Amino acid sequence: MSDRFDAIAPELAKQAIELPSWAFGNSGTRFKVFGTPGTPRTVEEKIADAATVHRFTGLAPAVALHIPWDHVDDFAALRGYAAEHGVQLGTVNSNTFQDDIYKFGSLTHSDPSVRQKAIDHHFRCIDVMDATGSRDLKIWLADGTNYPGQGDIRSRQDWLHESLSTIYERLGDDQRMVLEYKFFEPAFYHTDVPDWGTSYAQVSALGDKAKVCLDTGHHAPGTNIEFIVAQLLRLGKLGSFDFNSRFYADDDLIVGAADPFQLFRILMEVVRGGGFNNPDVAFMLDQCHNVEDKIPGQIRSVLNVQEMTARALLLDRDALNAAQSEHDVLGANGIVMDAFYTDVRAPLADWRESRGLPADPMAAYAASGYQRSIENERVGGTQAGWGA
Amino acid sequence: MSDRFDAIAPELAKQAIELPSWAFGNSGTRFKVFGTPGTPRTVEEKIADAATVHRFTGLAPAVALHIPWDHVDDFAALRGYAAEHGVQLGTVNSNTFQDDIYKFGSLTHSDPSVRQKAIDHHFRCIDVMDATGSRDLKIWLADGTNYPGQGDIRSRQDWLHESLSTIYERLGDDQRMVLEYKFFEPAFYHTDVPDWGTSYAQVSALGDKAKVCLDTGHHAPGTNIEFIVAQLLRLGKLGSFDFNSRFYADDDLIVGAADPFQLFRILMEVVRGGGFNNPDVAFMLDQCHNVEDKIPGQIRSVLNVQEMTARALLLDRDALNAAQSEHDVLGANGIVMDAFYTDVRAPLADWRESRGLPADPMAAYAASGYQRSIENERVGGTQAGWGA
Amino acid sequence: MSDRFDAIAPELAKQAIELPSWAFGNSGTRFKVFGTPGTPRTVEEKIADAATVHRFTGLAPAVALHIPWDHVDDFAALRGYAAEHGVQLGTVNSNTFQDDIYKFGSLTHSDPSVRQKAIDHHFRCIDVMDATGSRDLKIWLADGTNYPGQGDIRSRQDWLHESLSTIYERLGDDQRMVLEYKFFEPAFYHTDVPDWGTSYAQVSALGDKAKVCLDTGHHAPGTNIEFIVAQLLRLGKLGSFDFNSRFYADDDLIVGAADPFQLFRILMEVVRGGGFNNPDVAFMLDQCHNVEDKIPGQIRSVLNVQEMTARALLLDRDALNAAQSEHDVLGANGIVMDAFYTDVRAPLADWRESRGLPADPMAAYAASGYQRSIENERVGGTQAGWGA
Amino acid sequence: MSDRFDAIAPELAKQAIELPSWAFGNSGTRFKVFGTPGTPRTVEEKIADAATVHRFTGLAPAVALHIPWDHVDDFAALRGYAAEHGVQLGTVNSNTFQDDIYKFGSLTHSDPSVRQKAIDHHFRCIDVMDATGSRDLKIWLADGTNYPGQGDIRSRQDWLHESLSTIYERLGDDQRMVLEYKFFEPAFYHTDVPDWGTSYAQVSALGDKAKVCLDTGHHAPGTNIEFIVAQLLRLGKLGSFDFNSRFYADDDLIVGAADPFQLFRILMEVVRGGGFNNPDVAFMLDQCHNVEDKIPGQIRSVLNVQEMTARALLLDRDALNAAQSEHDVLGANGIVMDAFYTDVRAPLADWRESRGLPADPMAAYAASGYQRSIENERVGGTQAGWGA
Repeated sequence: MSDRFDAIAPELAKQAIELPSWAFGNSGTRFKVFGTPGTPRTVEEKIADAATVHRFTGLAPAVALHIPWDHVDDFAALRGYAAEHGVQLGTVNSNTFQDDIYKFGSLTHSDPSVRQKAIDHHFRCIDVMDATGSRDLKIWLADGTNYPGQGDIRSRQDWLHESLSTIYERLGDDQRMVLEYKFFEPAFYHTDVPDWGTSYAQVSALGDKAKVCLDTGHHAPGTNIEFIVAQLLRLGKLGSFDFNSRFYADDDLIVGAADPFQLFRILMEVVRGGGFNNPDVAFMLDQCHNVEDKIPGQIRSVLNVQEMTARALLLDRDALNAAQSEHDVLGANGIVMDAFYTDVRAPLADWRESRGLPADPMAAYAASGYQRSIENERVGGTQAGWGA
Repeated sequence: MSDRFDAIAPELAKQAIELPSWAFGNSGTRFKVFGTPGTPRTVEEKIADAATVHRFTGLAPAVALHIPWDHVDDFAALRGYAAEHGVQLGTVNSNTFQDDIYKFGSLTHSDPSVRQKAIDHHFRCIDVMDATGSRDLKIWLADGTNYPGQGDIRSRQDWLHESLSTIYERLGDDQRMVLEYKFFEPAFYHTDVPDWGTSYAQVSALGDKAKVCLDTGHHAPGTNIEFIVAQLLRLGKLGSFDFNSRFYADDDLIVGAADPFQLFRILMEVVRGGGFNNPDVAFMLDQCHNVEDKIPGQIRSVLNVQEMTARALLLDRDALNAAQSEHDVLGANGIVMDAFYTDVRAPLADWRESRGLPADPMAAYAASGYQRSIENERVGGTQAGWGA
Repeated sequence: MSDRFDAIAPELAKQAIELPSWAFGNSGTRFKVFGTPGTPRTVEEKIADAATVHRFTGLAPAVALHIPWDHVDDFAALRGYAAEHGVQLGTVNSNTFQDDIYKFGSLTHSDPSVRQKAIDHHFRCIDVMDATGSRDLKIWLADGTNYPGQGDIRSRQDWLHESLSTIYERLGDDQRMVLEYKFFEPAFYHTDVPDWGTSYAQVSALGDKAKVCLDTGHHAPGTNIEFIVAQLLRLGKLGSFDFNSRFYADDDLIVGAADPFQLFRILMEVVRGGGFNNPDVAFMLDQCHNVEDKIPGQIRSVLNVQEMTARALLLDRDALNAAQSEHDVLGANGIVMDAFYTDVRAPLADWRESRGLPADPMAAYAASGYQRSIENERVGGTQAGWGA
Repeated sequence: MSDRFDAIAPELAKQAIELPSWAFGNSGTRFKVFGTPGTPRTVEEKIADAATVHRFTGLAPAVALHIPWDHVDDFAALRGYAAEHGVQLGTVNSNTFQDDIYKFGSLTHSDPSVRQKAIDHHFRCIDVMDATGSRDLKIWLADGTNYPGQGDIRSRQDWLHESLSTIYERLGDDQRMVLEYKFFEPAFYHTDVPDWGTSYAQVSALGDKAKVCLDTGHHAPGTNIEFIVAQLLRLGKLGSFDFNSRFYADDDLIVGAADPFQLFRILMEVVRGGGFNNPDVAFMLDQCHNVEDKIPGQIRSVLNVQEMTARALLLDRDALNAAQSEHDVLGANGIVMDAFYTDVRAPLADWRESRGLPADPMAAYAASGYQRSIENERVGGTQAGWGA
């Protein structure tokens, strides 16, 4: 194990996973959002928490922003604040689903003036990116309809193309657009970007700076997600991952919590397809810590990705190729399962220590007093959540 | 058609569908709740709206309450208010999912003091029932866990049994408990009453006054719901329906909107199993009108149930029995489809008029000015929603 | 109704639905294939049965072939035989899933010699098309794997592209390739063409003569199929439909039997997107009549498509557009439901008679004596099925 | 690890998993059954193969029979044959789905004479059990319908109850009936025992000798199977497991292959609920090795169950209880994941050797020459499959 682990360590050392600022705020379901002591009230406090995750893990050097949730007057100053805390500002997520005007759509709305308002919001997001140095504009649309006939599915695709084209034109040379797809919710009859095929068709019509964002929780039951990963890498269109996990719908649970073997298979195809430590493929989390603590929830998440990446890197690809070419079904599967069942936790702990990181980031965080400190300090104000 | 319709009209005349008070308030998803002009601010305004649905359709003589959303100091007075508006107060729905103490469960919580608090809430609901003359206490639990290991699935069943037993003992002679099951949400790993089997096992352990509530949106993908209807009727344990429809998860769309043929099949088994116009089987709606108008949404819903009931009653049961016993697959299916494809709307319109009701309740409501009137009158205050 | 119906009758008169030759043979599940009296023993008898469906309905002027199931030495003679019976030979379906050499794949097999064998089979299919005058080569692949690691998902896509390119080059100027996708079965871990996105990406890399075939039973649970229809029409890549219906997996039940409203919505988008009576979009059935009689099963199927097409054509598109642009959710949905609930059966019966067809093709077939005649005549020999 | 492993070794030593005789024969899908060299032609050869699995693993001391697939004239002699090979004859599986008379049902058929024929078949199975010393009669029904209206769902439940009662009465004092449920297939509209609730209701109406059989592949997408395990154990009605795994439908893949973490959670609830090494709860496999070798496929399967059982037994239950009672979500989940991620393979290999078994049964079998030997010997005859 030790030799095998040493061989993959240099790759692990490069791994970076972007954290979502909103994971540190409160979240919940339509039934209830529970508050928790210590929850940030400001974007600066979110960044401080994200930086804490990075300090304990060395895995999370960037924080994604959600606009307008994370709006500030001076994004250049915010960039400086983040840098002081040891992290960068990452992907900018546009939000066109909480203004009353978007009740019936945003970039796909039948009314050109509403579409323009949504386009303008994306222009502002690009302005933010200019100030923060962010590369990626991530677009997830809540657009869709609840009842057959409510909207014209076909025209909405055309309007979507127009809107995206206009936004795309505004991107700088080093900026990208990533278009996320989602099977359902909050729309219940149709969503305007429901599957990878739609996202792929739309971004292909734009140009090289437009890519697909794959959120692991946004598929129909039973979907083979690693196939989509392999396909998008092959087509040169996988721009980023939103990692999380799910048992049913878009549960936004901790990545690897619901089906660790699925996460392994996804990472196996990422490695196979050249998507690992590839700057074109961003790794991000998109999760909700509804009932568990948020900072350790994020620490657990990046560790899960790291541990599973180690297993995927340990896969004996030569042996696998040989078994595959001989159609040795059990042998090939056995090689895959061997990598999955390898317990990488002890060597990872040693390796973390060798790099000046805590061997057990979860325990180290718990012992650090940070949580108690923020619970004491963050009194008053309005806790951050999806609405603010 | 006319003769066939006349034969079923007496049964249709008895049909009653209970409306949920909360359908008249605002609802939405975790992403956004959109407000709408004219939304009630008080339970009295909800009742007035529900009574309006009844006035235009003759189908909705009762309004279900949700406690504490619909809490008032004087429920006897509320009962009188409802009576003045021509409706009764119906099922009382307990709510143990919005108090912070229930973050990790209510009737299934590992802490006996929390369970007692939840039990006490149900005692108060029974007090409300005593005052309102309601028969049914409906229990839907948000209880469950989000992560494997978070709770002890087995003990929680035992605690659930204890809690339900204590509540059951408090029921009056003419009161019942109906226990609703739900596949998932808001809990994402396990729910404590996920399926009809669990609800059936739990209520069977209590006694004859405990029944199962079947919400048509609370099943796994592909579930044959009409089979469950037939089975629960056979077992004497179908207490009530929560009607709505769904494409994906618990979408709470208008009943019959997503899969009208499924609604037909459900009603066909209701009729077959003796569940129609059977006082033991309550018909209720449980819906969310997130993007459509609420009062016409409820009118449309009760009409959908009525129209589909008419089709189910028109089924030529003798011919079907004959085809079934001859294993004439296409013939038997054809008889079912013939009933489904029969357009009952014109005879229903005539029949409504003959009973002093509008032929087209949707059009009559639109023309009535009620909507404009409440939009003008209901200014200020806080619009009702799930949180209030 | 009469005027509305007259307006759509000319469009209905042009409708053509291709029948699968294999629907007339025996089929079943892995558990059992039940035989039935009168089942064809030869391709000629299948064609005779298909011609019978056309004779009673006027809807089914072509029969699709499956090679090698329908192999004959002289396809030109078979074409003549069909013509004498009043039908054409239609789409040629390749079969690369029943030869032992294809156990681990055909066009995607890791061994180039197996891929070549599968390519050669498609060349033979094109030869058949030349002889029969068929336009479309339909490719459905059983290729896939059962266990993670069994095959290399990524390489198989590349091999698929190579194989398809080679076949594509062989197509004549007036011939097309349609590539079908399927979620799962017979492969259980991954299929090489699992979704419309994959089929679209593959055919787009070939050229204008390659299109997507959409089988209505080949999707993940909950998939919005009409969205895919609208999208593929928009992209100019919808080549053909395989109609059938399903409750769970690829059940291959009679089209419209499981979810008639879904069929309506699909046809609504077909009409909306210009796919109806468009020569680029072929309508075909792909069904298994495991327990019901086969010929009336096919008659019922084409009638279901016809009736639902009539409802889709009756949709008041202007009113719908107006309601959509006003965001009148209930109004727009009501217009859609009004078309769906319209009982078109009586006017269709009258119209059939006016065209010299039986008013009720199901009854006419039952009364015709054809079934008794084939049961008496087709004695001995081997009944056709999927293996022969 | 060593101490922890020693503590659970005595429990592991008692583990027994029954093998299905049919796993050694050929199987496939409706599209194709591939044959493989060395496949048994007789029940004796199946038993010899099963005994081989036991010889290499020490885990599989019994073989389940399927009647009439495994019919012999002298079952007492077969019992002796098995004993000579070191295994017992186990559960007897009835088969009422391959005779033409059962096309429309067996124990639920509307014709009493067909039901009686199916009952008689079960009587013969009980006779077999008397001769073989088997305890359990396992009933899986293919009964159901493909189209709404084809059969009367409600009456079929009543007929099922009558049929089961008659069979139940025939059971000896030490014999049991286990009733398996299945979501769908081969019936596509309704199955007569689709879910655990139905099986539970039916067996509860019979008596203590009737239990539920849980096949891990027979649930709707997303079903929380470990919940059902916990519930049935709590209700005292879990009679046996049919282990396998699935990605989509009833794929019958190797247990643990598709979702190893699900298998872990199931075994965790088995241990929690007292179902492990409990004679009332039989562990069986029910799998199809369509593309992989059959004997090593079975070896892999029992090893998967053993390895996962070891992980479940290693769970620190006291620590988990403590974390649960403190609502430490991440802590409790971490304890569960720690057990799951523990690599038990090395200590299991050592322990096997200490018991005179091969450290690596897969490698030992491959090196044994058994496979080559049967491939050479088993020439001619008809390979066993589902039809013989």
